[in-house]
This record gives sequence, C-alpha cells and structure tokens, in this order.
Amino acid sequence: MFNPHWTHPLLVLSAVLAIIFALANFNSLKRIFIGRPMRTSELHAKHNKLYWFVALLVLAADLYSSVAYGPEAGMTEVAMLGPAAKWLILPITFATVVLLIILIVSYIMGVLAYPNGGGAYMIARDNFKTSWIPLVASGSLLVDYILTVAVSVSAGVQAIASAYPVVAPHATTLSVICVLIILLVNLRGVSESASIFAWPTLLFMISMVFLILTGFTDQLQKGFVQPSTPSVGTIPKGLTTLLLLKAFSAACSSLTGIETISNSVPVFREPAAKNAVKAYVALGLITGGTLLGFAYQLYVKGISVDPQNTMLSQLAGVYFGHGPIYQIIIWLTFIVLILAANSTFTGFPQLAALVASDGFLPRSLTIRGDRLGYSNGMIILAALASLLILAFQAETNLLIPLYSIGVFVSFTIAQIGLVRRWLRIKGPYWKLKMSVNAVGAVTTALVSIVVATTKFTDGAWIVIVVLPAIVLGCLAIRRHYEQVADELRIDYKTMKPRSHHVVTIVLVSGVHRVVLNTISFAKSLHTDVIALYVGFNDEDIDKMEKKWEEWGAPCRLVTLKSEYRSLLNPITRFIQRVETHEGRPDHVHILIPQFIPRKWWHFILHNQSALLLRAWLLRHKDVIITTVPYHLQR
Amino acid sequence: MFNPHWTHPLLVLSAVLAIIFALANFNSLKRIFIGRPMRTSELHAKHNKLYWFVALLVLAADLYSSVAYGPEAGMTEVAMLGPAAKWLILPITFATVVLLIILIVSYIMGVLAYPNGGGAYMIARDNFKTSWIPLVASGSLLVDYILTVAVSVSAGVQAIASAYPVVAPHATTLSVICVLIILLVNLRGVSESASIFAWPTLLFMISMVFLILTGFTDQLQKGFVQPSTPSVGTIPKGLTTLLLLKAFSAACSSLTGIETISNSVPVFREPAAKNAVKAYVALGLITGGTLLGFAYQLYVKGISVDPQNTMLSQLAGVYFGHGPIYQIIIWLTFIVLILAANSTFTGFPQLAALVASDGFLPRSLTIRGDRLGYSNGMIILAALASLLILAFQAETNLLIPLYSIGVFVSFTIAQIGLVRRWLRIKGPYWKLKMSVNAVGAVTTALVSIVVATTKFTDGAWIVIVVLPAIVLGCLAIRRHYEQVADELRIDYKTMKPRSHHVVTIVLVSGVHRVVLNTISFAKSLHTDVIALYVGFNDEDIDKMEKKWEEWGAPCRLVTLKSEYRSLLNPITRFIQRVETHEGRPDHVHILIPQFIPRKWWHFILHNQSALLLRAWLLRHKDVIITTVPYHLQR
Repeated sequence: MFNPHWTHPLLVLSAVLAIIFALANFNSLKRIFIGRPMRTSELHAKHNKLYWFVALLVLAADLYSSVAYGPEAGMTEVAMLGPAAKWLILPITFATVVLLIILIVSYIMGVLAYPNGGGAYMIARDNFKTSWIPLVASGSLLVDYILTVAVSVSAGVQAIASAYPVVAPHATTLSVICVLIILLVNLRGVSESASIFAWPTLLFMISMVFLILTGFTDQLQKGFVQPSTPSVGTIPKGLTTLLLLKAFSAACSSLTGIETISNSVPVFREPAAKNAVKAYVALGLITGGTLLGFAYQLYVKGISVDPQNTMLSQLAGVYFGHGPIYQIIIWLTFIVLILAANSTFTGFPQLAALVASDGFLPRSLTIRGDRLGYSNGMIILAALASLLILAFQAETNLLIPLYSIGVFVSFTIAQIGLVRRWLRIKGPYWKLKMSVNAVGAVTTALVSIVVATTKFTDGAWIVIVVLPAIVLGCLAIRRHYEQVADELRIDYKTMKPRSHHVVTIVLVSGVHRVVLNTISFAKSLHTDVIALYVGFNDEDIDKMEKKWEEWGAPCRLVTLKSEYRSLLNPITRFIQRVETHEGRPDHVHILIPQFIPRKWWHFILHNQSALLLRAWLLRHKDVIITTVPYHLQR
Repeated sequence: MFNPHWTHPLLVLSAVLAIIFALANFNSLKRIFIGRPMRTSELHAKHNKLYWFVALLVLAADLYSSVAYGPEAGMTEVAMLGPAAKWLILPITFATVVLLIILIVSYIMGVLAYPNGGGAYMIARDNFKTSWIPLVASGSLLVDYILTVAVSVSAGVQAIASAYPVVAPHATTLSVICVLIILLVNLRGVSESASIFAWPTLLFMISMVFLILTGFTDQLQKGFVQPSTPSVGTIPKGLTTLLLLKAFSAACSSLTGIETISNSVPVFREPAAKNAVKAYVALGLITGGTLLGFAYQLYVKGISVDPQNTMLSQLAGVYFGHGPIYQIIIWLTFIVLILAANSTFTGFPQLAALVASDGFLPRSLTIRGDRLGYSNGMIILAALASLLILAFQAETNLLIPLYSIGVFVSFTIAQIGLVRRWLRIKGPYWKLKMSVNAVGAVTTALVSIVVATTKFTDGAWIVIVVLPAIVLGCLAIRRHYEQVADELRIDYKTMKPRSHHVVTIVLVSGVHRVVLNTISFAKSLHTDVIALYVGFNDEDIDKMEKKWEEWGAPCRLVTLKSEYRSLLNPITRFIQRVETHEGRPDHVHILIPQFIPRKWWHFILHNQSALLLRAWLLRHKDVIITTVPYHLQR
C-alpha cells in the first residue's frame, strides 16, 4: 500500500544537482569528486600532440556518432507513407553524402586559412566588421552544442533501450543522469586530446564496417534483391517535395560535428595543418562510406522506423540476433554517442569564454575553475541540456528539428567569412579556394533555409526565435559593460580618497554580549555612533530604555515603535531622518550584529531578519552595511 | 510532434511556490495578494462572538467532513473479502459512533475545565510536570494537522474526480494547487469566526440528511431488504480479528476534528462554556446520526469500494443519477473538505506559536505576519502537506493509516491530563467528571494502540518514528535557546563597551571609482587601513602596483598572487598574518566593495565572488565584514 513515488526524474535530478552544488561549495567533497585544484601554470603543460590518425579518432566522435541517428531521423519523416517509401533512404542518404563532401572540402579550406584553429566565431570576427554576424555564428553554435548534448545522450540511451526495453520508461531520467556524469567528469578535467578516447570511436567504426560487410556477404550469397527489399522508383502516394525536403533536413543532422577538427588543429603533430587535412579526408571517406553502406543495408533488409527499436539495432538484430556481437554494437553506439556529448563539454565552454572575453557574455564564463576548465560554462551547458531532455522527454526525433539549423547557419557564416578572406588576402590558388567556399556557402545557406522552413512548425521556430534573442542579449551585455567601464573611470590626478563624515547606526535588540561586542567595535571606529532599538510595543521600549540607563548609556540610544511588526519601515525612516536632518553625513553606516551558530542547522533557530534587512537596504538605500558576527560557543 | 511536458505537478508546484516566495519578498505583489499590513492593535478587534449554532457550523467542518471518507476508509480494509463482507459496515460504523459518544462526553468535560479554550498541549502542560508529555501531545497534533490538510484536500479532489473522471489523472496537481490557494487565502488572513463559513457546512449537513431520508423513503416503498442488500451475519471467509480491528482503525478517521470546539470556546457568545457544550451535544447527534444513516444506506444498496468512485458519489448516483442534486452533493462535499483543511491553517500556526513561545520550536514561528496571522507556520504547514500529497499521489486511502494515531495519542494525553486535574482541583461532581475522562482516556489509549499496531506496516510506523524525533528535536531546541541565553548574559556593572584596535583591510581590484569610494570610507574610520590586491599573474600585479603609485598610494598596498585562481586562500592567509603578526588587532575588519546594478538581472554580469567570499569568511573566520555598495547609474 505504501508506495511513495520518490524515483521521479525531477526528484532524482534535483538530488544530483544538489550534490553538484554541494561540490561547488563544500571543499572536502569537492576534492573527492573534482580533485585537487591545479596551478594556472599547469595549463600549458596539458597538451601532448597527437599522431594524425589518433587525433582523427579522438575528434571524430561528434560527427561519426551522428550516423546512428541521422538516416533514421530522415526516414521518420516519410514513415507514414508506408513501405512504398522505404527506398527513399537511398536518394536521401546520397544527397546527405554529397553535402558531406562539399562541407569537408570547404572545411579543409578553413584549416588552411586558420591553422591555429578557428571556429565560425573567430572566422566571422576576423572577416566581418559588424559585431552581430560573429554573434549569430557563436549564438547558433552555442545553441547547437546544447542540442548536441541533448540529442547524443538521448540517442545513446535510446540505443540501450532498444536492446533492453525495460530501460525505456526511464529514458529521461537516465539521460539526465548521463549528462550529469559527463559534467562531473569534465569538472574534474578531461584533456580534450586524451588518446584513450580514440578507442571506442575506432571500435565503433570497425563494428559499423563489419556490420555493413556482413550485409554484403549475405547479399553475395542470397542475392542483392531479397524478399524484404522494397522496390525502387515507385513514387509513394502522398510524397510531396516538401516532405522530401523535410526528410533531407532531418537526415542532415548526420553532418553535425563536422567542424570539430577545424577547431582543434593545434592538437595535431606538426605539420599540424597538413595532418588535419589528412584527417578531414579520411573522416570524410569513412563517414560517407558508412552512411552509404548503412543506408543500403537498411534498404535491402527493408527496415522501417520503429520508435521502440532503432534502425541500427534492428539491422544488427537481423544479422546477429541478440547475441554478443549485437550487444557489442549497441554498447559501442552508446559509448560513442556519450563521447560526442562529452566533446561538447570542451567546445561550449571554450566558445563561451571566447565570446565572454569580448564582453558579449557574462565575464564569469572566462574564469577557469579549480581544474583549469571553464566550469561555469560546463555547468550551464549541462543545465540547459538537461532542461531540453526533460522538456522533450529524451525523444531524439522531437529534438532533431531544432538541431541542424544552428550548425548550418554557423557553417554558412564561416564559409562567407572565408570567401571574404580569400578576396582580401588572396595568396596561392586563392580563386580556387574562394570558389570552393562560395559553393560551400551557397549550399549551406540553402540547407539552412530548407531546414528552417520545412521544420518550422516542428520546433525550428524555437531556434529562430531564440537566435535573435541571443544576439540582442549579447549586444546589450557588451553595451552594459562599456557603460560601466565609462562610469568607473577616474582621473588619477584629481580624484583622491579623502576622509568623510560618517554616522554609524548600531542595531540593538537588548543589552547582552552581542550588543556589547558590536558597540565596542562601533566605538573603535571614531565616528558618530547611535544605537537604534525597534520595539513592537511600549512596554518593551520602556524596558530597553531603563536597561540602557542601567548599563551607563555607552552611546546615544534611539527607540522606535513598529506598529506593523516590521523592522524595515522604522529603520528606513530613521536612515532618511539621519540623511536629511541629523548631521547630514556623507555616509550612513549600519552595524548589524549577526549570530553565527556552530552547527549550520541552528540557523533556523535564530531569526534571520538581519539577512533580509541587509539585502533590502543594500539594494534600495545608499548605506554601508557592516555585519558584526558573534560566533556562538555552543 | 512538439509536445513538451510543462504541465507536470512538480513544475506547477515549483511555479506556485516561486510565486509565494516572490510574494514574501516583493512588496508590491505582496500587497495585491496579501493585502495591506495590519497594526498589532487591530488584533483584538477581530473577534465577534457567535451564536452557538453558527459557531457549531463554523467549527464543524473538520469533524463532519470526515463522514465523507471515514466509513469508506473502514470498508477499504475488508474490500478484498468480497461481497460477503459488505454488511460489516454496520458493526464497524456502530463501534465508531460509540467511540464518538465517549469522546464528545469527555470533551465536554474538557470545555468545563478550560472554558478559555485549551488544546491537548495546554491541558498537558497544566497537569504534567515533565516537559515531554505536553510535547508528545503537541507533536502528534501538529503531525495530524498536516495530515488533515493532505487527507481532506485529497478526499475533496477525489470527490470531484468521481463525478468528472477526466480530473482523476491530475488529482495530485489539483490537490497541491488547492493547498496553495488555501495558503494564500490564509496569508491574507481569514477570521476563524467568519460566519460565512457556516453556510457550506450547513448545506452539506442538509444534503447528507436529505440523501439519507431519500434512502429511507425509497426503502419504505421498496422494502428494507432490496435485491442489492447483502445478507447479514455470515462471517466472510478470511475475516480475522486483526482485519476487523484494522477496518475499525481506518473508520476512526471519521472522528478527527472533534477537538476543534474545545480549542475555540472563546468564539461562542456568553455563557461561552455552556453554549460550547450545547454545540458539542448537537454536533455529536448530527455526526452520529449521519454516520449511522449513511452506513445503513450504503449497506441497503450494497455499495462496494471503488477507487475511481467514492461511496458517497455512488450512493448519490443511485438515487439522483448524475443530475443537479448529485452535482450539488459532490461540490458541497468538496467545499466542506476544503473548509476542513482551511480550519487547520488556524489551528496549526497557533499551536506552533504556543509551543515556540515556550522555546520548543524556532522562535520565528511566534512572529505575526503582515495580516496578523502566524505566516511562517502557515507556509510550513502548506509545504509539508504538499509534500505528503506528492509522495502519496493524493490517494486518501494511503494517507489514512498515518492519520488517526496522532489524534488519538493527543486525545489520550488530554484525557489523562483532565483526570489528574480533577484529582488535584476536585470541585462539584469531580468524581463523575473524572470517571468520564478516565473512560475516555482508556478508550482513546486502546484505540491508539489498535491503530498503531494494526496499521503499523501500512505507514503508521512513519508517525511512530517521527513523533519521538519531534519530541527530541523540541527538547534540543529548548536546550539550545537556554544555552545561548546563558552565553549572552552580561554583568551590567563590569562589562562596558570599550574602544578596540582595528585593522581595516580593503579589497581592491584596480584603481577606479568603486575603489576610490571604498578607500574614502575606510579613511573615515580612523583605523589602520591596508589595501589588498589579489592577482592571478605577475603582470597584473606589476600593473596594479604601478597604478597605485601613480594614484599617489593613498594607503599601504599589499599584493598577493593566487596560483589557483581563488580569492579565498590568499585572503584567508593574509588575515591570519594580520591576526598573528601585523599589529595583532582586536578586530580584523574587511571592506568588500560591491556593485549594485540598477536592474536585478545585471547581477549575473558582475562577478559575485564577493558574496561567496563574505559568506565563507563570516562562517569560518572571526572577522567583521563591511559591504560598501556602489550603485551603478546604468
């Protein structure tokens, strides 16, 4: 009978968040999970340059893992047309691979132009004079990083849920927990170039190739047209150009993560740029080959979309049943998708710090945490991705429509930026390079428009609304910082500190050790001191005045009666009186005694109105507030 | 496709809580919902004495509304025995009514003894020397008040859900919203004696009597044994004494709320005690009559327990279909159950304030809010009741097992207290009165034991664990207050404030208007002033030292390098150095400049490390901390 529902995802989430906040505050716990703080000077000792193939594997997770959900996202769009639409996977995937090739070639131009690693934001900042274009690039990339985490983790958990249906009802909770674990690991600090991350991606690539080759062996034996193979070329009833474009837009989510190598050129061994180009070519070949082979196998086996069972899981099931090979494929998919999310925890905070150092985002994003990572950016990324997962209940197909726009918008800006760069700088073969980027720019611009329009009502509108808001917000932040800097600037010659007339008001609640302590401090400051007592009725006030006399009236005592049982009103009115009549000081200085109990839970036993009072006065009045702590002995 | 799950109960809850917290903090909003603050002197003008019958109706909601779930709770326990157990409703309800009579008579003795209104806590404090017995009484009553809110609101929503099944899946959310609305209304302030509350209870009584009379008319026409009537007397297979006791325990939840009149004697017109006795007799008659008649009708119509449809709704449905009369009955049930919860929002905070004024609970519970109610107690009651509703998903039958123990424990203590009082004070007919209370004490003690043992595994253990914890907590709180009072006491003759040696440390981050402002204030205090700069690298420190010279070095500057990018460590070490080496002052005084932006959201644009630093230093070091605000102009 007694069955409380403690296992709710939001409860779990808040528990885990509570732990993380605790980590951020309690040193001992923090040391256990996050590790010892690191010296700033340790920062540059971190990078060890990687052999190009290892670097490729380390950086490939984001792009290559998309294979697991991209073709499926495309087919989901035409699934309601029935089996007659199954063959569409071939042209849709083919179009995607063409786009992939265009993007790889364009990005190789990017690597040649910015061998120190330059994301879309850097390229745009370097090649556009207005500040809003780079902000559109960075804004859309930031949004996309958040979506990468949400989509990759959801897709990873979905892969597991395909193999173990019992997991399915807890997909949201599990996804959020994965995000938080990735956050913890990253707060501890993961070197982006840790070659250990190469292995899962390599194994996943091998397993995908193995799966596809198993398929072709099967077809060599049983024929390339099998009973399950749908017929090609018949146009299914209800197919419209719009629908086809929608399917293509969704499939384009396979191409997200293509920018990673260009951002991380310095990770490669010298000659870094040349090695990065090598890696791009290899990555293009393996990703394109996998996409085509995978799509062809899905087609031959006539596999259709099933929300309970991913297409990859179905295909693996067809060839290997649910035995060990199937298990290996599923778990590798999961691990590589988690790695894709993980790589974002380097990209997002770095980009945010870059934008923040230009004054377009809160400055706290530029501060490195104990382990030298930008921990604030990581926490924000994890929080926003978790919110997305919760809002969309970890359903990959609901998240995909929001996904690709950002990437393609930033791709477009980067390509146009490169075109402008070649026009300006020229250099060897500049016309060829420029044409490549021009083709890239036109293609990605077209894809952006297609994605934005076809997916508009499915959620793309959210991104289209959010992006301008981000840009405007960034501009407002920069303006605020500039205004504050203007306001704070002083003339060193003429503006020097000088002594002011200060009236010190001590809030007293009786005559006891805390008041003794506070009045003693007030007297040490050599300012005018007034003790202020607020009573709720006449008897209390009389009693206080008598006690004060008995104590020898160490300073002037003012008593006020609060008819509304509030401290705030009488104190505010008294401050006003002091400011305008009594002494007209330059500063009103208020001393608030505060109990500091030995055990934190004792706080609730002592009236914390002092805290509220302090917060209110700081915000609303121009007074200086001193907290005089009294540390209770027990 | 796009279907985020915003409507989740926890999300709704947090939104509403956020609103309530906002109300507690933002004056303008607070004024709209809570109303203008009231003078303390308005407190005693509130009560207008009520005619006994009106007072009866106003105070009856808690007890009389239990009719709606008590019999059903009893029958739920034997429901799995099948139709053969249906007739058990007669003996179970009969036993409940006998207990009701005993309690009414005992409580009349209570009214005669404490005509100024005395709850179980007052009676126990007056008649027991140890402090833990009154605390058991108050603790169990407080727990029970919380459960009254949870059970009444859940049962009310369940009544609505019986009529409109579409509501059922949202029962938890709706229940929590009801609690929060009741909280808001009570924060605004409801006079306990507002005679408007008499109407719904009166109408509900009339409708129950009408329902029962309709039943008897029907039986006069169709015979007292109808096809649906189960046969009496056959002992159903599987019936054990334990099960029967369990059913009885559950049915006893009908008797909660019986104490309300005895707590509120001053509400009655003079002669108050006599009128309260009249009300008790009338309330006993109507409640007992309703219970018996209602149970009899349920028996004749052979109505069985259905979690989707309350027994009351089923019975009303049998006679009136789902027409207007049925609707009226359902809505009246809902309103009266909500009124029962509402009455608790007076009882709980008053009792908590009483216990807190004896030093057993946090003192903040004794503070009256703007509208003269004990708002802190109300907020705690609403929060705990909401948590219970969420944990038990608003299922009345899961909450009932926790419910009655508290009431019966406090009943028992009150009765024993009265017995001791009669023994001590004697007075006319004291032996008779004492015997009545002795019978009451024995009966309620027996019922407490029965409820606690039979319902132990169904959730009663929670209360049995929580109660001693509350009592121990209360004793610890009182001990803490006494220790603090001892610690704070000073000798007026010998302990006078004297001037101390103070070293003032000003944290500076550069040379700008804020620093100018802060150093000026520091110089006005006539203490030793040291400016402290923490840099993250050597260049920053060099630059700062040069700027300082250029500015004319208005005071001594100390620069520290933080290798770990933390302010806390270098500042803490410097404080230690000052305390032990440099000057060895009586007080170390730290000035922290703080930006106060004009718009609250600008806060996130300025590094709030000052806030964290302040909190940490206050807690861990014996330093006095001054916040020097700089109010940004834009």
